[in-house]
Amino acid sequence: MGRGILEHAYKEIFPFWDRIPEADREYICQNSYMVTYPKGKNIHDGSECSGVIIVRSGSIRLYMMSDEGKEITLYRLHSGDMCMLSASCVLEAITFEVFLDVEEDSECYVISGPAFAAVAKRNPDIKIFALETAVGRFSDVMWVMQQILFMSMDKRLAIFLSDESSRTGSDTIRLTHGQIALYMGSAREVVSRMLKYFANEGIVEVSRGGIRILDKKRLHKLTF
Amino acid sequence: MGRGILEHAYKEIFPFWDRIPEADREYICQNSYMVTYPKGKNIHDGSECSGVIIVRSGSIRLYMMSDEGKEITLYRLHSGDMCMLSASCVLEAITFEVFLDVEEDSECYVISGPAFAAVAKRNPDIKIFALETAVGRFSDVMWVMQQILFMSMDKRLAIFLSDESSRTGSDTIRLTHGQIALYMGSAREVVSRMLKYFANEGIVEVSRGGIRILDKKRLHKLTF
Repeated sequence: MGRGILEHAYKEIFPFWDRIPEADREYICQNSYMVTYPKGKNIHDGSECSGVIIVRSGSIRLYMMSDEGKEITLYRLHSGDMCMLSASCVLEAITFEVFLDVEEDSECYVISGPAFAAVAKRNPDIKIFALETAVGRFSDVMWVMQQILFMSMDKRLAIFLSDESSRTGSDTIRLTHGQIALYMGSAREVVSRMLKYFANEGIVEVSRGGIRILDKKRLHKLTF
Repeated sequence: MGRGILEHAYKEIFPFWDRIPEADREYICQNSYMVTYPKGKNIHDGSECSGVIIVRSGSIRLYMMSDEGKEITLYRLHSGDMCMLSASCVLEAITFEVFLDVEEDSECYVISGPAFAAVAKRNPDIKIFALETAVGRFSDVMWVMQQILFMSMDKRLAIFLSDESSRTGSDTIRLTHGQIALYMGSAREVVSRMLKYFANEGIVEVSRGGIRILDKKRLHKLTF
């Protein structure tokens, strides 16, 4: 793969790129590859170091899973996002397992974990960047935890629908109740019940095609 | 306060201590103080930077709280433990709020946040250490999240009672059901019901004085 494309991408993503020796830049590029993951594929299951994953396009869901297979979505990675939690060999302090599934066909750059770790060992700037990325995600996870443990379901669902509508730029959310429950770490029955409540209030309209937001103002009010 | 005592403690706690310039060691010591917090005191409420707290003796509980005042215990700090999450001015990537309450009278060293941040800026080793400490706690919090979200209540209570018994070296856990619920991020009613179940099974004996473990083997079995 041409080093030019990688250089261009890494310059955008890594604030340290211009400050590290040319030999290290070369080494990172040599130990990178570009890959297109198809929708639905599991690309990391916590058992080994899958490397540093950088999303060029598409959408990847990061979640935790219980022994019984129950899932909690922690966050999603979109274009320009980077995953350090998939590179357990880079950050030894990370002792928990997460899973990564491809939600939409995704083009990614992947840097080999051992190669990234070797360069980070020589350049404190990189080590600090990797750790700060992980700590930033710690903040995201704490937010999810607050949502799941503390917030009432109506508020959570309202926030989910608003966010999804903003993200897709559409008033119609084309997801099944089961999918919404999965994203929210809830049960399908709970989501269906709350959507029915929202529909009765005239806030949304539920049909086979998805959930259409009718009253943005009231939905917004519920998010506070 | 004598610098000797601080030097001795910091040498134990900080792996970078001998590698940073004497001027920075002096600066950290000058911006440190020792304090004894009484049981029950709230020493950090998330609103400002309380500095880096190092526990010399005692026990401090770190928890998150909802707008409605519901609490979830994330972990506890004991002798030799250090809290970076209370020093939001040191790690900018931490954008969530935690609370710290003193559980038992606690002697602590506290390093001013801005002073620690200034020295960390000059010494990448310190910055890396601070971030790694935070990422290590990320792992702890993920474990708590797994416990709360995924594990069944009997298993969780069994683990709590076992841990508490090991920690205190006693078969009797002198906590109220409400206190146990608080520590476990559960409701008092749920804890009481499960304790009654354990008592019926002959695993524990519940009295005014606390919970006495009668059948360690079976309690242990429940933790798997």
